[in-house]
Amino acid sequence: MKRTIYVSNTPLAEARQTWRQTLADHHFPDGAPMDSVPVDDCLGMLTAMPVFAHSSSPSYNAAAMDGIAVRFEDLAGASESSPVRLQQGRYQPVNTGNALPSGFNAVVMIEDVHQITDTDVELAMPATPWQHVRTIGEDIVSTELILPEGHRVRPIDQGAMLAAGVTEIKIRRPPKAMVIPTGSELIQPGLQARPGQIIEFNSRILAGSLQEWGACVRRSAPVPDNPGSLRLAILQAVKDNDIVVLNAGASAGTRDFTAQVLAELGEIIVHGVAIKPGKPVILAMVDDTPVIGLPGYPISATLTLRLFVREMITAFLGLEPSEPEVIEAIMSRPLHSSMGVDHFVRVTLGHVGDTLMATPSGKGAGAVMSLVRADGILTIPAGSEGVGAGEKVPIELIRPRDQIDSTLVIIGSHDNILDLMANRLHKERPIIRLSSAHVGSMGGIMAIRRREAHLAGCHLLDEATGEYNISFLKRFLQNTPLRLVNLCYRQQGLIVSRNNPKNIRGFQDIATRSLIFINRQGGAGTRLLTDKILREAGISPTEIAGYGHEEYTHMSVAAAVAAGSADAGMGILAAARALDLDFIPIAEERYDLIVPECFIADSKILAVLTMMESSRDFHLEILALGGYDLRDCGKVMYQQ
Amino acid sequence: MKRTIYVSNTPLAEARQTWRQTLADHHFPDGAPMDSVPVDDCLGMLTAMPVFAHSSSPSYNAAAMDGIAVRFEDLAGASESSPVRLQQGRYQPVNTGNALPSGFNAVVMIEDVHQITDTDVELAMPATPWQHVRTIGEDIVSTELILPEGHRVRPIDQGAMLAAGVTEIKIRRPPKAMVIPTGSELIQPGLQARPGQIIEFNSRILAGSLQEWGACVRRSAPVPDNPGSLRLAILQAVKDNDIVVLNAGASAGTRDFTAQVLAELGEIIVHGVAIKPGKPVILAMVDDTPVIGLPGYPISATLTLRLFVREMITAFLGLEPSEPEVIEAIMSRPLHSSMGVDHFVRVTLGHVGDTLMATPSGKGAGAVMSLVRADGILTIPAGSEGVGAGEKVPIELIRPRDQIDSTLVIIGSHDNILDLMANRLHKERPIIRLSSAHVGSMGGIMAIRRREAHLAGCHLLDEATGEYNISFLKRFLQNTPLRLVNLCYRQQGLIVSRNNPKNIRGFQDIATRSLIFINRQGGAGTRLLTDKILREAGISPTEIAGYGHEEYTHMSVAAAVAAGSADAGMGILAAARALDLDFIPIAEERYDLIVPECFIADSKILAVLTMMESSRDFHLEILALGGYDLRDCGKVMYQQ
Repeated sequence: MKRTIYVSNTPLAEARQTWRQTLADHHFPDGAPMDSVPVDDCLGMLTAMPVFAHSSSPSYNAAAMDGIAVRFEDLAGASESSPVRLQQGRYQPVNTGNALPSGFNAVVMIEDVHQITDTDVELAMPATPWQHVRTIGEDIVSTELILPEGHRVRPIDQGAMLAAGVTEIKIRRPPKAMVIPTGSELIQPGLQARPGQIIEFNSRILAGSLQEWGACVRRSAPVPDNPGSLRLAILQAVKDNDIVVLNAGASAGTRDFTAQVLAELGEIIVHGVAIKPGKPVILAMVDDTPVIGLPGYPISATLTLRLFVREMITAFLGLEPSEPEVIEAIMSRPLHSSMGVDHFVRVTLGHVGDTLMATPSGKGAGAVMSLVRADGILTIPAGSEGVGAGEKVPIELIRPRDQIDSTLVIIGSHDNILDLMANRLHKERPIIRLSSAHVGSMGGIMAIRRREAHLAGCHLLDEATGEYNISFLKRFLQNTPLRLVNLCYRQQGLIVSRNNPKNIRGFQDIATRSLIFINRQGGAGTRLLTDKILREAGISPTEIAGYGHEEYTHMSVAAAVAAGSADAGMGILAAARALDLDFIPIAEERYDLIVPECFIADSKILAVLTMMESSRDFHLEILALGGYDLRDCGKVMYQQ
Repeated sequence: MKRTIYVSNTPLAEARQTWRQTLADHHFPDGAPMDSVPVDDCLGMLTAMPVFAHSSSPSYNAAAMDGIAVRFEDLAGASESSPVRLQQGRYQPVNTGNALPSGFNAVVMIEDVHQITDTDVELAMPATPWQHVRTIGEDIVSTELILPEGHRVRPIDQGAMLAAGVTEIKIRRPPKAMVIPTGSELIQPGLQARPGQIIEFNSRILAGSLQEWGACVRRSAPVPDNPGSLRLAILQAVKDNDIVVLNAGASAGTRDFTAQVLAELGEIIVHGVAIKPGKPVILAMVDDTPVIGLPGYPISATLTLRLFVREMITAFLGLEPSEPEVIEAIMSRPLHSSMGVDHFVRVTLGHVGDTLMATPSGKGAGAVMSLVRADGILTIPAGSEGVGAGEKVPIELIRPRDQIDSTLVIIGSHDNILDLMANRLHKERPIIRLSSAHVGSMGGIMAIRRREAHLAGCHLLDEATGEYNISFLKRFLQNTPLRLVNLCYRQQGLIVSRNNPKNIRGFQDIATRSLIFINRQGGAGTRLLTDKILREAGISPTEIAGYGHEEYTHMSVAAAVAAGSADAGMGILAAARALDLDFIPIAEERYDLIVPECFIADSKILAVLTMMESSRDFHLEILALGGYDLRDCGKVMYQQ
């Protein structure tokens, strides 16, 4: 186990400053590269030089109306009472755009022309010189400035350039970027990943981002983890590209050769930045070409790309750095952070009442879905130890503002129906987005209390009364006027492997035969149910192997069973069905939505309630999942 | 002259309503067309169905850190004082991403591993079950909803789909649109337009706009003005497209066959809408395919496309109509408008002090440059007779807000140096944009008085004192603290045809030989100079043919001479040189910039003043134009 690479902990600001200076020292970008492009193809590109008109438009005096060309002198004194009659030759019919015939100097609109005979017309108004004539150069005069340098070409600009006789222009050449995925464990999308294999999708995220920022990007095939292949790939890439991005191998594992190879081929400027996630990023120069070694986790890679590469593209294109859109929000829960490290936290945002609440969208640098769901990024600067609940924080938006304004926030217990609801809402009213966080029933009640959510899914059984949810609301939300609306009744039971090979019939089997269980987190309705069942059966948690291993959703429990890391877990039939597992029914439970009274009139909430009450399609979709009963769906079970 | 087509005057709201109803009746769009697209290629496209995970990610329990895999049970009780020693076999080295080897259930980070011998390690801390392990489905669980229907795919979404084993998705197919330019007078860009010929550039503007709105667009070759060709082109286009756009022939000229042919092939729903510009637009259905006949002028065509076709694309793609960004501005001058007609006015915007001022960017439906320069569109509704100066008006933005915030507004006399200045400013500080309106020197003074402009170019000779500008400032801007900064001295003279074929030596020749003059507008410094010279020479304006034909810029005057519609006009040497014309010097005059004191500290103004005073490159560029003397460039000539 040879691990000799030292990853430093350079403060972010210092790393960025050093990197910018290095790029400047190496003349990045070198000169102001430009391409010649036909005007027909330059939409969205940036002009590299000012564009001047080659010719005038119009290039001749042109009729600006349908009508007749006249000599204005002929109509002097014309009036209703003494109209002027013109014979053929003294006028000439013209359509809009026609050249004004030689010798004429005005146009009379067709509406004002009285045809007297086949050849003669009568006019009852005088004309002014050049009336209804577009004179030469009226729109564009030859040599006039059409577009300044550094202008992003719009359709109307293309029109103006073509009108001015310009058919080809110089544009600023976008930087050529190459993304090189590295790792012997990588396989192409579409293949089934065996243990230890990873689907190569990072390079698509990175290439897509670089493209959106303005680069011209290619992706290479994955390079296996050996120094020789990596060396070859880098040397080839720096020859043909302005920016090279490696992913990954930046860390200090036994197969992380990136730093070693880069140090050999060129110079490592920074290796290791005091940020989380993204610490092991490498910034290097090889043959005057910047090479960035990104960490392997998708979130770390994406973040470090944003921090270091985005501004390189902007600089290459000669643009001023774009200011990110920042919004103030209230943090819904405390976040701890180590001093000396800039923390970047993905958050979802939602207007709950008048307050914009920010909630972390998920942890783990490997959690792609946490970034799919995120609305913004919170930076906890190195000098801070964290953020308190209720604290006002600046959030950099990564989703358009209007989408955030129309987001419905549901926090609480998880049920597969919520996915159906999210999709149907978004489909029927595209602007509405359902953002759901799965933190268990008690977590949902607390979210309503903290005004973090519009809705909470809840299935808490009060053992004393045998009733669902209501006693918990009275206890924890006594000051909040609300309605409790039923979403469904659902089957809870043991999720076990396909065909139930271990022949599990209940918790007794798990305890006595030392089978491995997978549990739900404290505060989950399913956890309460599990504990109640164990208590009733006289089984102690200590008798259940795996009782301490907690998952946050039914689907995660089912996934653990499907993968063989557990023999059984409590969950709903829908989750077992989704992964084609067996299911041993234990109990039917009630699952309700908590709706604070203050949101009842919100059109987004109305859309949800209406769908629950009366969308036959929605009901059919739910029933197709299996294990659901909708006898009370949409019914108000309790009100306070 | 057979003109039988009746163009109606349908109110805009009614026309839009009728058109929407017609589209609905004809099932536009027909169904929800979709395409299958590889995930690698779907960036920016809209999902046509919800996307569910095909597999879980991770698909196996994976090490989340570089380190060793252990059984957490083995480390029970480990501490600094009594570390646990593990022999080979009881642990296994793992890198991040490796599958957790069978039989192990936790990972210890490399930093916490003490290598004792080649084979043995020592650990001084207990482990918790599954620590540093990414469990199956931790990020994505098979069958989970990844993206709802109608979602625009971002790079991170591509990554999530590929991670979840999804390699192809259904996307909403963009509408296929065909733009057909019509007109026998059309020639391809790059050719020299002879009188009566028009460069075909409209179709590029229209196609570019449709593309930006989300359509998949093709342009056809121009169709000549005859019913047969037009009929064929339309029949072919409606077969293969969802939307067909014709341009032009919508009007009622002798060659305007569009309405006639459309009535023959299908049904005309609306022909003629009470809008200006854009009145003769045709909305028709042929074989259930919408066909829109746009007016010929670029501004009319662009506007009607926005009004009628944009929302068709939005509807086709199943999106909610996007709200245009509207901003409040103060109108700088009155605008009259006919009752019963919705007027659309292109305006430029600029922050002058705290006020956002709106100024029309140019008249004429043929004026492409007026739309190139425009920042927004003002709608004067049919029920109004116009807008007063100083009135607050809503402006629909067509340029990003931040560009408008950093626009420097210069209004007044025209000089070719202003183009150089605009380009150099934009190049050096890309965010700064110089918006210039050419309304003559007096117009500039009035703009400063109305607080419409940051700067005004001015060259007004006071005949009484022989001095430039100052007496006018004292008279018209007595209450405005300001500085008068010299830009240049410049040659004014008569611009005449190349090689001066009529041997013009001065105004006397024009008067006595009845040559045709082209004049500048009242209030222009050049006009004052002209009048002074005529007076001094004892020539009456009535002796000058063409005295009443006014242009607004030096370049327009030069263009008229170049085209042969005038024999001579007063202007600057730079304009004559630009169009390769001859020039008879008459006088040197001073051209200054008026800078109100309240803007002196503005960084944009500072950039301009610094450039005037000290940019050698700028001076060289100016001198290359010819006819300029920069002895006082940047010098404060007067202050009040």
